[in-house]
This record gives sequence, C-alpha cells and structure tokens, in this order.
Amino acid sequence: MAGSSAEQLLSRIAAGDGHGEISSYFDGWKAYDMNPFDLRHNRDGVIQMGLAENQLSLDLIEQWSVDHPEASICTAQGAPQFRRIANFQDYHGLPEFREAMAKFMGQVRGGKVTFDPDRVVMCGGATGAQDTLAFCLADPGDAYLVPTPYYPAFDRDCCWRSGVKLLPIECHSSNNFTLTREALVSAYDGARRQGVRVRGILITNPSNPLGTTMDRGTLAMLAAFATERRVHLICDEIYAGSVFAKPGFVSIAEVIERGDAPGCNRDLVHIAYSLSKDFGLPGFRVGIVYSYNDDVVACARKMSSFGLVSSQTQHFLAMMLADAEFMARFLAESARRLAARHDRFVAGLREVGIACLPGNAGLFSWMDLRGMLREKTHDAELELWRVIVHRVKLNVSPGTSFHCNEPGWFRVCYANMDDDTMEVALDRIRRFVRQHQHSKAKAERWAATRPLRLSLPRRGATTASHLAISSPLALLSPQSPMVHAS
Amino acid sequence: MAGSSAEQLLSRIAAGDGHGEISSYFDGWKAYDMNPFDLRHNRDGVIQMGLAENQLSLDLIEQWSVDHPEASICTAQGAPQFRRIANFQDYHGLPEFREAMAKFMGQVRGGKVTFDPDRVVMCGGATGAQDTLAFCLADPGDAYLVPTPYYPAFDRDCCWRSGVKLLPIECHSSNNFTLTREALVSAYDGARRQGVRVRGILITNPSNPLGTTMDRGTLAMLAAFATERRVHLICDEIYAGSVFAKPGFVSIAEVIERGDAPGCNRDLVHIAYSLSKDFGLPGFRVGIVYSYNDDVVACARKMSSFGLVSSQTQHFLAMMLADAEFMARFLAESARRLAARHDRFVAGLREVGIACLPGNAGLFSWMDLRGMLREKTHDAELELWRVIVHRVKLNVSPGTSFHCNEPGWFRVCYANMDDDTMEVALDRIRRFVRQHQHSKAKAERWAATRPLRLSLPRRGATTASHLAISSPLALLSPQSPMVHAS
Repeated sequence: MAGSSAEQLLSRIAAGDGHGEISSYFDGWKAYDMNPFDLRHNRDGVIQMGLAENQLSLDLIEQWSVDHPEASICTAQGAPQFRRIANFQDYHGLPEFREAMAKFMGQVRGGKVTFDPDRVVMCGGATGAQDTLAFCLADPGDAYLVPTPYYPAFDRDCCWRSGVKLLPIECHSSNNFTLTREALVSAYDGARRQGVRVRGILITNPSNPLGTTMDRGTLAMLAAFATERRVHLICDEIYAGSVFAKPGFVSIAEVIERGDAPGCNRDLVHIAYSLSKDFGLPGFRVGIVYSYNDDVVACARKMSSFGLVSSQTQHFLAMMLADAEFMARFLAESARRLAARHDRFVAGLREVGIACLPGNAGLFSWMDLRGMLREKTHDAELELWRVIVHRVKLNVSPGTSFHCNEPGWFRVCYANMDDDTMEVALDRIRRFVRQHQHSKAKAERWAATRPLRLSLPRRGATTASHLAISSPLALLSPQSPMVHAS
Repeated sequence: MAGSSAEQLLSRIAAGDGHGEISSYFDGWKAYDMNPFDLRHNRDGVIQMGLAENQLSLDLIEQWSVDHPEASICTAQGAPQFRRIANFQDYHGLPEFREAMAKFMGQVRGGKVTFDPDRVVMCGGATGAQDTLAFCLADPGDAYLVPTPYYPAFDRDCCWRSGVKLLPIECHSSNNFTLTREALVSAYDGARRQGVRVRGILITNPSNPLGTTMDRGTLAMLAAFATERRVHLICDEIYAGSVFAKPGFVSIAEVIERGDAPGCNRDLVHIAYSLSKDFGLPGFRVGIVYSYNDDVVACARKMSSFGLVSSQTQHFLAMMLADAEFMARFLAESARRLAARHDRFVAGLREVGIACLPGNAGLFSWMDLRGMLREKTHDAELELWRVIVHRVKLNVSPGTSFHCNEPGWFRVCYANMDDDTMEVALDRIRRFVRQHQHSKAKAERWAATRPLRLSLPRRGATTASHLAISSPLALLSPQSPMVHAS
C-alpha cells in the first residue's frame, strides 16, 4: 500500500492520532491487560474503569434467551427457521427486525414518539452508523462541530473512512458543560474563518462522558441553528435507555415531532442508535441510522451491504425486542440497577470530598479531581492519571482523551463490574485521596514553618519534600500500601 | 447531503450505475419478486436462477447446531458463555474464531497450506473484505485490473466507498475464458496509456460466473506479473470449498508457499474469503481478509471496527469450524451434492444441444446460448434474456452484467433450489429451446423456398414471419404454453 492514503492513515493510527480509546488510553489499557483485577484470583490487579460497558442487567437477557429457545435458530425449536435466516441477505434487513427495532426505539423514549420501520437502517454497530452518516453527509475535509468533552472514538468513526474533521465546541464546568448558542456560534464562525465547510453538529445525548441528558431548550436551539445555517444535526442517542434519574431523557425525535423547534428542517436531523450500551450487547454489532431525510435513508440503506448485522443476531433480537412486556421490565430494572450503582459510587466518593458532575444517565461518572492537580495543566492531569493507573491500579480515563479543555476531570465507568469489585475500586480511590490530603496538609504545615524559603529547587535537583507537594507520583513509593490495596 | 460525493453516488446508484446485481438484473429480480415460483403454491411463477446461493447442504449445518446446543449462547447449555460473548468487542475477533478459521482455511484447501490466525482479519462479509482491501491498497481513482467476465457486485464492493476503478482484462471463449499474460499486459498497458495508476489485479478463483478453477500456471504467471510491476494480487477465493470435480482447486496460497512462483513478492498477495458460499450462510456476514503483508494486516485489522462479525455468530462458527471431523464430512458431502446437481443440470441442457462451459466449481453454470441470438450483439442478448425472464420465467443472468464481451452467455444458478424445482427449470429451458429450434427450422425452410427475397422489412413494418427469425420474443405469444410450463 506504498503511498496510499491508507498507509498515511496507518502511520497516523500507529502514532496514536485520532483514536483516544486506543492512543491516549493505551497506557492504561496495557496496564489493565497485563494485570487484570480478579476478585478471587488477582486482588492486586488493575481494575478496568475505562470501559463503558453495561454488565448490570445481562442476566435478564440471558434468562430470556434460555426461556425462548425459539428465538435462536440453533435450537431444536428454532431450527425450522435456520435455512431462511442463514440465507437471508437483503440489505434492508429482516422486516421483523426493523419493525421491532422501530417499536422499541419508541418504547425506550417513553412512548412519546413513534419511529417508522422504513427509516430504520442497519449498520455495523454505532461505529458503522456514524461512519455511514459521515459518508452520506459530508465530503472529506468537511467538518462536524462537536461539544466538548466528547467520545474519543468519534475520531475513528467519523474520520478514518470519511475524512470528516471534528472541531470542538468548547463547553465549561462553570455551567456544568452545558452547550450554549454562544459557544456554538463561536465554533461555527471559527471554522468558517479557517475556510472549513461545516456540514454537521454531532452531539451525544445522553452524553458520554458527562453522564447527563440535554434539556429540551438546548435541543430546540440546536435544531433551529441547524435549520438556519443549513447544517446537519447528528444525534447520537446510544444511551437513550440508560437514563436512571430525573430529569428524564428528551430525544431530538420528541423535539421535532412535538413542535418544540418550530420551522425546523427535518431533513437535517439524523439519529444514531445501537444496542451496545443499553443492553450491554456490543459484541452483537447492532447499529442503527434513523434519518428524517429520504435521500440519506436511501443512501445509507444501499451502504448497509458493507455492515449488515448477522441474520442470526437480527432474528434473535427481533423476537426479544418484540416482547414489549419483557422490554418494559428490562428497561425499568436496568434503570433501577444503574441508579443504585451510580448512587453508591458517587456517595462513596463524596465521603472523601470528591465530587462528580451531577449525572442522571450513562454508565459512568465525570469525576472532578481538579483539586488534586499539581497545576492546572493537561500535563499535570496526565501525571495524576498515570498514578491512578499504575499505583492506585484503576484504569480510569483522563478528560484530555475526551478533548476536555479543563484539566482535572476523569471519566470513571462503574457498570462493567460486580458490586464487590466496585467497592474495592471505591476503597482504593478513597485511600488514595485521603493519603493525598494528609500529605498535602503536612506539606502545608511544613511550608508554613519556613516562610522565608521561596526559591524552588533546580530541575534535576528535586528534593523529596518538593516532590511531595509537586507531584502525586511521590505520594506512593513502590512499597506503598496502596499498591496492595484491596 | 447537498453537493456531497454521497449524493453523486446515490444518483449513480439510482441510475443503475455500478451495481450489476441491482441494475442490470433489476428487471429479472423484479419479475421474480412479483411472482416467485413455488412448487406447491405457484407453479406458474418465475424461478430464481440469478442467485448464487448454496442451499444444498444447509441441513447438515442445521443438524450440527441442534446436536451442539453448547455452540449457541442462547441455550441452557451455552448460556454460561452469554455474558462473555455478548460483551466481546475486541476488533481482533474472538481468538478461538480466528484459530478455527485459519485451520479451516487450510482444511478447505486440502491441507496443502497452513494459515496463520494472526493474519486472519474479520470483515462484514466478502463485500466488507473487498472494501477493506480496496481501502488499504488503493487511493480513489486508482485501478484494479479484472479478468472478464466478473462478479458484477465488485463494482459495489471496490468502488462505492473506496473509489477504485475496475478495468477489464478481456478474456474469450476461444480458450475457455482463460486469463493470458498477453491480455493482462494489454490491459495494464492500456491503463497506463490512459494515465490510470494500476494498483491491483483482482481475480476470483474459483471463478464467478464461469464455475471454473484457475490452473497453477496462470496463478504463477499472475504472481510473477504482480511482482514485476509492483501491483497487488487480490484473490477472491470465496468458492474454495465449492469445487466438486477435477481439476482440483489450487489456491494462491499454495502457489506462493510451494514455490511455484519463484521470487514472488508475498507482500503483494491478499486473499478474500467468506462463509457465504461454501456454507450457504450469507446472512451471517462472515468475510475474511488474509494478507501476507504485515502493514495490510495491521491496517485492515484497525478497520475491522467498521464491520465486525456478531460475537454470537463468531462463537457459533468457532465451535463448528473447530469440529474438524464434521467439517471434513461436510466438505465431502457438499461437493458430492454439488457435483450431482451440476451434472444433472448440464446433462439436461445437453439433451437439447445446449452446452455450458466445462465447469468444476461454484453454484452455477455458464450457459452458451450464442446460437439463439438474433445477432451477435449485447442488445440481442438482453432481448433473449427478457424472453427467458418474462416468458420462460427463469431469472437467469445475462453475460452483459458480468462485463462479458461476447454476447450470448448466461449464468444459471442451480444450488439455491430443490431437485424438483430444478427439474421444472430444466423442462422450461428445454421446451423453450426446442420451440426455438422448430421455429428456426421452419423459417429456414420457408426462406429456402423464396431465394430471391433479399430485402429486409423496414423498421416499424416488421412482419410476423420476420419476427419469427429476428427475435426470440416472437417465439412466445402471451398464450404460449411456455408461460404455463411446469
């Protein structure tokens, strides 16, 4: 592939460009992979808190599948369907799958909106859905505006194949990272000044990594702005079914269908959905593009051939999603379990004075460790992060990898483990924070006793006492009890 | 998507450009869809012979799945694996799947070569495999050389996303459509003269639509040419396990591993494989890229995220493919059934003097109807084809849609139906041919009695007797018994 664009891409990927989940996190994932925590067999290992995976309610799905052998073509009860399903290759997808998916997409949004099965387009996971949309909506070099912090793998999903540029809309903790029209206009104008053609605004609602939902007003503002400037509004709603507290979820579908954004051009609105998060089935590779634009539906449908969902999986899910009674029970129970997990985790952090952004959705909290930074820089954030990964042995994700402009925020996933593991993780964080507070207080007392010593040690001549203040690294010696925390 | 390349593509697709399976065949598929044959309920319907689908041995797989409930995560026996499999999202694929696939790829090639699991890259079907390879190997506007006739949907697989151009290497019936070095050099030089950069040679071996395998000498010639000119050799071997007669199948893997192409640059050789044809599982969307080039493996692997196979399906297939005893039995029995079907079909055609290209592989025959054309043109071929679709009610595929340069060839699929349906199809063809022969003989006798009438009727003033000679359309009146053949 000498000289091809793929070769250039590969070098960029290898250099860690454009794929946070692989690049920025690489160190943390490596640490986890080399020494994964196990409650019984490796209590000294790294706990994986960098994976937005939902394991809390898989037992319900597992039980449903055992109770419904007819839903699998690989059982005596389901085998009569084997031939039809195995041979099925229509890129429109199984009609019963699209029907059930459309119905479920309404159910997961509280029945407040309906979805048309003929607008449901199948893709290979949310990755495939974003890639397909980017291909349909933009040319290489065109840009999407994306509010920060945002899901790092959008760089892969929207850029690797389609060559879309992602330009940040800067959001801030001062208003809980709410997207404002001012920030949007500023990003849009900035792109135009650079001569970049803006083709879309890409939002995740509920937000990954914030764990919050977007309010109706913001959504209406976005729809109005998109209409006004004739840019697309791409709404990633893959956590729609993972909202566990008030305020409830408002889908863009609801906003445009209920007239919250008068005059809004529906042709510019597109939803990406998936079963990877709400159901914890990322392996099944179910991505959905739902567009209000007929041309996009037609084009995306044709492109489906590149990323169809296995018909074995379509068949199974069609039957499960069509079981409305089970789905209602699943959604309620999943929300209940997510809420319990979230509340316990956040309360556990609060015990040592660590706050999280108030959240009501998702599989993670947006943890505020700004107070623990040596200085307010991204370098200091990464320094703290390395300590958390290698010494505290928690693979969390630094805000930097989500393109967050304020250092000191971390995404911590809590739904990919059992209760006991989560308690171990909480314990490790709390001990780490307490030790940090203790060292800091001691250092401050020490500094107070020597008010005249103002000069800092030279680089390379760092003293132990300086390290104790300047870097959290120094908080933990290799023999630190934290290393063996459990 | 105003103004985007996707919009342009969509117009091209809508206009029928670049996708034979959809465009050229559209008429035939529509005829089939509107009136599908059914042995019991619609004996007057159109028989689908345009679908290269293997239904002959699915009963074996179905039985295996029922006998091995542990292979499905949706059974009581397999459910303990549900959580692990449903959550699995590593783009490398399940290790056991890659292991089993590599082993099976050797088995299907008679154990003469071995495949390295670390070079097995998963894609969404053969479509995804070709798309991934095209992305890795070429830039938009670069070309692949493809021997004719070739699989029409390569236009989709290689062009729609990656923008590769396909340039024909003209092959001819005079040597049974064998690819010669002269034809290859001529196509290569022609492309260079046009200023097009040739990046690869794309072959299907066994060939779709020819139903033949490529000999060792031709493969060695291709490998040498690729090395000499530094172009890639992409070998689509998706029918590797559907070879049912001598000469046996020779994989490019065998040629390069056994030294049949001395000095060959392995970095230029790539294989596409799939389970859609050999197993009749197109719905499962299993495509494989196997490359001897480390960079291509690395890049294709990264791109896997866009077209992963459902982990439910990976798990099932990993267990089935690893059952070497079953696989051996399946391959032998499948070949036996394919041979029986092929032999019966070809013999049935021979009864009325219709020949097929001698074939030893695939799910179809390349039927020679040149003698039935009004004239040696593609228009005449399509005219005959329309008669076959609408009056004879067989949806076969005209050579034109395979970019065949010689009018009068048709691909006829015979493995997507049961024995009885195939007999009905054979019967229809034979009656059609006999009627044609009868009318032709009569017309010739009539012409012989009027030797002096040389002028042809004017356009628009066509007489019935002229039509009887000039167009097969006239052979069948709307009340023709052929319409109700069964």
